[in-house]
Amino acid sequence: MAKKMNAFYAQSGGVTAVINASAAGVIETARANKSVIGKIYAGKNGIIGALKEELIDTGKESKSAIAALRHTPSGAFGSCRFKLKGLTDSKREYERLIEVFKAHDIGYFFYNGGGDSADTCHKVSQLSQEMDFPIQAIHVPKTVDNDLPITDNCPGFGSVAKYIAVATREASYDVRSMCATSTKVFVLEVMGRHAGWIAAAGALAADDNNDIPVVILFPEVEFNREKFMAVVKEKVDAYGYCSVVVSEGVHYADGKFLAETGLKDAFGHSQLGGAAPVVANMIQEDLGLKYHWAVADYLQRAARHIASKSDVEQAYAMGKAAVELALEGKNAVMPTVVRKSDKPYRWEVGEAPLSKVANKEKMMPKSFISRDGFSITPKGRAYLEPLIKGEDYPPYKNGMPQYVTLKNILIPKKLDEFEL
Amino acid sequence: MAKKMNAFYAQSGGVTAVINASAAGVIETARANKSVIGKIYAGKNGIIGALKEELIDTGKESKSAIAALRHTPSGAFGSCRFKLKGLTDSKREYERLIEVFKAHDIGYFFYNGGGDSADTCHKVSQLSQEMDFPIQAIHVPKTVDNDLPITDNCPGFGSVAKYIAVATREASYDVRSMCATSTKVFVLEVMGRHAGWIAAAGALAADDNNDIPVVILFPEVEFNREKFMAVVKEKVDAYGYCSVVVSEGVHYADGKFLAETGLKDAFGHSQLGGAAPVVANMIQEDLGLKYHWAVADYLQRAARHIASKSDVEQAYAMGKAAVELALEGKNAVMPTVVRKSDKPYRWEVGEAPLSKVANKEKMMPKSFISRDGFSITPKGRAYLEPLIKGEDYPPYKNGMPQYVTLKNILIPKKLDEFEL
Repeated sequence: MAKKMNAFYAQSGGVTAVINASAAGVIETARANKSVIGKIYAGKNGIIGALKEELIDTGKESKSAIAALRHTPSGAFGSCRFKLKGLTDSKREYERLIEVFKAHDIGYFFYNGGGDSADTCHKVSQLSQEMDFPIQAIHVPKTVDNDLPITDNCPGFGSVAKYIAVATREASYDVRSMCATSTKVFVLEVMGRHAGWIAAAGALAADDNNDIPVVILFPEVEFNREKFMAVVKEKVDAYGYCSVVVSEGVHYADGKFLAETGLKDAFGHSQLGGAAPVVANMIQEDLGLKYHWAVADYLQRAARHIASKSDVEQAYAMGKAAVELALEGKNAVMPTVVRKSDKPYRWEVGEAPLSKVANKEKMMPKSFISRDGFSITPKGRAYLEPLIKGEDYPPYKNGMPQYVTLKNILIPKKLDEFEL
Repeated sequence: MAKKMNAFYAQSGGVTAVINASAAGVIETARANKSVIGKIYAGKNGIIGALKEELIDTGKESKSAIAALRHTPSGAFGSCRFKLKGLTDSKREYERLIEVFKAHDIGYFFYNGGGDSADTCHKVSQLSQEMDFPIQAIHVPKTVDNDLPITDNCPGFGSVAKYIAVATREASYDVRSMCATSTKVFVLEVMGRHAGWIAAAGALAADDNNDIPVVILFPEVEFNREKFMAVVKEKVDAYGYCSVVVSEGVHYADGKFLAETGLKDAFGHSQLGGAAPVVANMIQEDLGLKYHWAVADYLQRAARHIASKSDVEQAYAMGKAAVELALEGKNAVMPTVVRKSDKPYRWEVGEAPLSKVANKEKMMPKSFISRDGFSITPKGRAYLEPLIKGEDYPPYKNGMPQYVTLKNILIPKKLDEFEL
């Protein structure tokens, strides 16, 4: 009988409100299969933890602490932005990974991240075969950008979408109250450098019972100041106010980001970030309208307090399915969300080979953006609505959400130091 | 027997997550006393509605619509920033108010706002006596700035405080996850031009179970770049990251706001707003640390989805008490929150004469700010903690909070037009 192998789990890239729910899914499912899977290690600060042989023993965490991951935002073991390149360029790193896995009898690699980490996961699987220490590498999808292919959506996105939709609705009610004598345009900047998935969620602020004027600036649509001003003016004329949701990645025809268009501080240094103040200033200049602006930044992806229940369930399910795929002997695959119907929303867990996932970016379909380029279509709405469905409140104590901080105890190293 | 008089209610100044809960308290309590109070009118867009004789008949709203105000942010009847000055300067406006009240048999005036509106309310009471049409004028406290005197706290503040505390905790968890290789300092800009009450709430992100480094920039403390950088560096050295909560009103010794210190756009125009990007840039310049920044703006005061239950209950109680005071024959008073104990939190409704409320700003006590000027004291914490206690979630449908939009039907005018 084959030796019982250990498992390694790591979080990758920008964290989300629900990536820890995937971690809970992985760890609880692995714990429930002790006869097959031995220890469950986690990388301290993601894949860097594997390279530096900084392996967290998740066995030191109580059952309740692991359960609490389900309602804790951020990356409980630490994450990092560290992209491994091709097997040639990053050969040294890949070989080190296999060495570390070998030294600690790790036969299962669960990597929780976006497109880059799917690629890394795939390469680890390939190289481990070549190096004669076969590892089952399973990718667990995660990204607020919702840009992974094959899966209907990515855990992490639904909760950001819900946050943006709720925030836009609430701020719109606020502005509506005051617009007769005060602010007429509210501008909210949201994440999304390449794809407008998150910005699109702003449109959900409006529905049959909420006739709210929302103008969206997508990175998919080249910014045209005149057209934009025309639509803002039209909304303000009709409603007395309007809300603008601007993606950080909005740019001109020449590719230049709005946020880069010349804000300088007192010392002449370029002021980074802030598409919202740029757009707000333009509105003031061109239309003379009073504005307010907000930049949600990390608040949107950390907002576990307003997480989507669909999203939490899917994040957990992806972690659980990853372990189940491993138990079935699968390798170089990723569990996916397969949508069965919009209304009522039904989905199930599917599976995709990493060769078809790695390094492919799923853009928002053109059919989701309205003809004028400033809103979403009914098709886009039908896609988005189920993803924000349901609430999944964390427990509170004294008015504050109770998130867990793990002990994160490292196991002893067995190998020499590794220079990153 | 005296003629049954009608009531007039108006919302004033910046709206909050719970000002409509006060409206519900006023209207439901007045409706329950039909034998004494006749119609209940509301000002369209606040006091401007009274001046323009645009009176909303709240009797046209269903019981469930009025009940839904309790969980709806913003100002359901519209609010405005319109300050009436002294009885001499604004004589024309005051006289117009009394005329409108007289024309519509309004004997009760409930004015829901901050210090300025308390003053207006007081003056209406005084002038109505002089003009021989005595009106019982009752002020209903509301302000996110928490700056009204006598009352322990102001409805509206607790929910903003909860939003800022939760957002700071969530973003801090996020940054902690990534700080080994990415962002080290997160800067959140919050409201508060004169007083640091809202910024102070950022400190609640940390507690005995959450050892989070939070540095607060209060408007009460002159900004000293060197001292600030020293404390940020100390936190980042100790924790690997830190969160900064900066009040929009932070300024230098000479009174100049940080947000005004020289951001210019490509056209050389001053860039308004944004203490957060200014602070973040300084951190990058002085310490070379990677940062992210957010500006919460209206999101913080509109965030009914994360309202404080204490706050909602007090907002409703203030509206209810205002009507009860009127029924007792009181005039020129304001109901107040009287704190009886911190732990367990107990409070009751008190009462203050408007002569002692009007035009007095309550600043944050020095004893609430830590000696180094960058945090709060245990005394400050003991004050703040009860105010964010409890959750009071709005109902949701399809993943979105269900807020009410009223019909807001105006009654026929009886007087000539009035030029504002």
